[in-house]
Amino acid sequence: MMMLTPERMAPLKARRLGIDTHHEPTLYLPAQSHVCRSEGFESLSRVQVTTHQSCHLIASLNIVTDSLLADDEVGFSESAWKRLGLKAEDPIWLSHPKPVQSLSHVRAKVYGHELTDLQFQSIINDIVEGRYADVHLAAFITACGDDNLSDDEITSLTEAMVKSGSTLDWQLPLVVDKHCVGGLPGNRTTPIVVSILTACGLTVPKTSSRAITSPAGTADTMETLTEVSLSLEQMREVVSREGGCLAWGGAMRLSPADDMLIQVERALDIDSEGQLIASVLSKKIAAGATHVLIDIPVGPTAKVRSEEAANRLAASFQTVAANLGLELQVMMTDGSQPVGRGIGPALEARDILAVLQNDPEAPQDLRQRSAEVAGAMLAMVKHLSPEEGTRLALDTLNQGTAWEKFRRICDAQGGFRHPAVAPYRYALVAEHTGRVTRIDNRILAKIAKLAGAPADPAAGVEINVKLGDQVDCQDVLIMIHAENAGELNYAVEYLNEHPQVIELENLLQQEA
Amino acid sequence: MMMLTPERMAPLKARRLGIDTHHEPTLYLPAQSHVCRSEGFESLSRVQVTTHQSCHLIASLNIVTDSLLADDEVGFSESAWKRLGLKAEDPIWLSHPKPVQSLSHVRAKVYGHELTDLQFQSIINDIVEGRYADVHLAAFITACGDDNLSDDEITSLTEAMVKSGSTLDWQLPLVVDKHCVGGLPGNRTTPIVVSILTACGLTVPKTSSRAITSPAGTADTMETLTEVSLSLEQMREVVSREGGCLAWGGAMRLSPADDMLIQVERALDIDSEGQLIASVLSKKIAAGATHVLIDIPVGPTAKVRSEEAANRLAASFQTVAANLGLELQVMMTDGSQPVGRGIGPALEARDILAVLQNDPEAPQDLRQRSAEVAGAMLAMVKHLSPEEGTRLALDTLNQGTAWEKFRRICDAQGGFRHPAVAPYRYALVAEHTGRVTRIDNRILAKIAKLAGAPADPAAGVEINVKLGDQVDCQDVLIMIHAENAGELNYAVEYLNEHPQVIELENLLQQEA
Repeated sequence: MMMLTPERMAPLKARRLGIDTHHEPTLYLPAQSHVCRSEGFESLSRVQVTTHQSCHLIASLNIVTDSLLADDEVGFSESAWKRLGLKAEDPIWLSHPKPVQSLSHVRAKVYGHELTDLQFQSIINDIVEGRYADVHLAAFITACGDDNLSDDEITSLTEAMVKSGSTLDWQLPLVVDKHCVGGLPGNRTTPIVVSILTACGLTVPKTSSRAITSPAGTADTMETLTEVSLSLEQMREVVSREGGCLAWGGAMRLSPADDMLIQVERALDIDSEGQLIASVLSKKIAAGATHVLIDIPVGPTAKVRSEEAANRLAASFQTVAANLGLELQVMMTDGSQPVGRGIGPALEARDILAVLQNDPEAPQDLRQRSAEVAGAMLAMVKHLSPEEGTRLALDTLNQGTAWEKFRRICDAQGGFRHPAVAPYRYALVAEHTGRVTRIDNRILAKIAKLAGAPADPAAGVEINVKLGDQVDCQDVLIMIHAENAGELNYAVEYLNEHPQVIELENLLQQEA
Repeated sequence: MMMLTPERMAPLKARRLGIDTHHEPTLYLPAQSHVCRSEGFESLSRVQVTTHQSCHLIASLNIVTDSLLADDEVGFSESAWKRLGLKAEDPIWLSHPKPVQSLSHVRAKVYGHELTDLQFQSIINDIVEGRYADVHLAAFITACGDDNLSDDEITSLTEAMVKSGSTLDWQLPLVVDKHCVGGLPGNRTTPIVVSILTACGLTVPKTSSRAITSPAGTADTMETLTEVSLSLEQMREVVSREGGCLAWGGAMRLSPADDMLIQVERALDIDSEGQLIASVLSKKIAAGATHVLIDIPVGPTAKVRSEEAANRLAASFQTVAANLGLELQVMMTDGSQPVGRGIGPALEARDILAVLQNDPEAPQDLRQRSAEVAGAMLAMVKHLSPEEGTRLALDTLNQGTAWEKFRRICDAQGGFRHPAVAPYRYALVAEHTGRVTRIDNRILAKIAKLAGAPADPAAGVEINVKLGDQVDCQDVLIMIHAENAGELNYAVEYLNEHPQVIELENLLQQEA
């Protein structure tokens, strides 16, 4: 029996269709194409693309029944076109990809089995090679959800993720890094902490992610202030010049599987404990960190809601870090209300600038928190007490050396810029005099996201009150910022349905 | 502040792009469109489409950066175009869909919480209204995987699925139905059983699904013999004329959520116990059944591998059926090897015809099994012993009345046709004399799927041996059938990697 290899078949001609399918590469094939008939492809088939330079890519197929394409053409979405570096009419061969064997491990995980090192490696390799469609990524993420991964499994997953990409080795005994598990809107201490630590002479090759399920990630916020899409080489240069950086990790192929999983986690709004630990630690290890501080905000509407849950998460972080030879310290912080005033990339950037510039109007909670986090890290590596560490951090802020360092890092990354301002706004005002008794972090985050954050950098929410504040009737409690009317409407509608976002105790009524 | 409602905005013009995105409706919008700017849409946004006739649909968006569309046009995929019944240049408004509140219940399920009636209803309603993207369906399916649903939850899910669609009421005390949980290739007893039962005067409004993770579902097989895409009204007519039907359930909106979930279950190759029970029972209840028989084949490479697992599944089926007021009986059958000769729609159809026509070459195992299943159902409703039931079923086959009834049902559904034959074949021959000691159902099913089944109806595998058979060197063990060379290659490659599909004990070696 003759076996037809793809190369023996007449090639198709590549055509760029200019369709942006985001991260999922997609191909378009005319129904009457000889390849459709000979290979039995149908819509949503996964196909392997081969170029004349033997580049490979696995993509989803859409069959085109109209006259969009000639019979011998194959259309490419933007991501597929760019990943293969194609030119118009390049010859293209399509074939069936090999069966994705590692999906049987995902199924085993759904059925509650413990996976091995090798099984995680084969899953992660297949993900990085683009063999998983989004539904497969969604199944893997969900199967690893809740506390379905043991500490050993998280260790295996972390190692597999590190191995799947580039790694950095700074040839230094001490490379520090920090991570906040998030869930606390506006808690953007990282740029301030990195500025303080590098100003104190430490090496901090900080790579951050974009938002997963929150209205802003550190990379989104930093992008309103400078360039963050650095290559690994550019990042190396910035760090060797300034001792630290504040870059987006996604362009560096440090744990690239993580970047792909995060795309789908965002759509699902699921961010599980095991994936969280593997995501954080794989990035730190790949970036060459030796000492890591994890900040876990705890509060009734934060991501981690109880001290018990925080202790469990902390213990897993410690165990996995120890398995991987990483020094790790966990710090639990108050997560009862937002930090600073802004929620959303540009609004948070304004708070950061105010703190670094010692603006008397700067949010004091953000300043104090950043000093404590930096202080804990200084204490960890310089053998100081936490109080001594915090004092050193505050001194560095007060003397302006942290601000100077921040500017130098921005310059090294491509230049400092001012964050954008949103034209569309909506103010929520107090309907009566009262005292603020409750602020719902989750509703605030949701409003900021509906307003367009983080995709629209200037969108978000500004909060003018803290727990315990007394407000007068008609005082502005929060201000929604949006870049367009559609999203502003959408956020306002949600706000109207959730008036409990800020609860006021009615002092007048109590007196009556 | 002014709120812009979609209707106040200038509409876009509908354009059919002829792109087949399968079941996921997709829209294409030019990057420079005023709607993109005012609403902040980006690629993969979920958007709500409104027509001038106030029809609504939620679809995924792809931004088009090329000259594919004019600035005031919006492109539609085939499924989106058809569902809205559009004409070229129809005015179209796009807006942000409401947040999908029920996704928080999916997340709760991921975190191991028990869901309520109302929570399942809101999930299922959102699914039926198209609010879930495929990744959300994948997360829901995975979260309900393994034995993550309690019997109460399965009951709630089943009821929610029944309520989400049409239901039939035959105004009869006795309406019977059957289901086989599958996993046993070639076990296509249903068309034979329905023919026997209706020939015996019972009412059997049988709707079947297409394959989920197997090489053929009963609907796929029946489609090679007659029309199966009946409307609810057509099905009612066929049943009132002939007492039974053999139709595909997907066009009838009987438990439509199930049809949508199955699309993604197929891509994931996950088919969980809770979803299985809810899927099966929701279809039966919606179709108006009062008495149901569940056939569970048990074998080391069947879907249910041990008696223990079968007992657990049977108990859940019983409890959920009792909660829903359904008479249900479970029958466990031998699942150690394929039934009949064919695996794949047309190949299985040939076996069915041979049994119904009392062909002496007909596969006796399929004949006997069908008689036993039909017998158990006759026993259940006619108060006979199982042996008496089986005898009655065999008599009905022998007298030709079952075959006559089958032809009449096919005629009523749109006419009988002969199953197709595949042009591409590959034979696996015995390399030595020996006795067949093991047949792997899963590998056989996989080969049939790689060969193109069920999408290519004539594709699949023909098995020429049974456990215990003695074969000579060069005897054909299995024959792969395919409709094109690409898929045949693919199946053969997999076969070569899995020679254990048929194990032969080497008699010569043993004698030596």
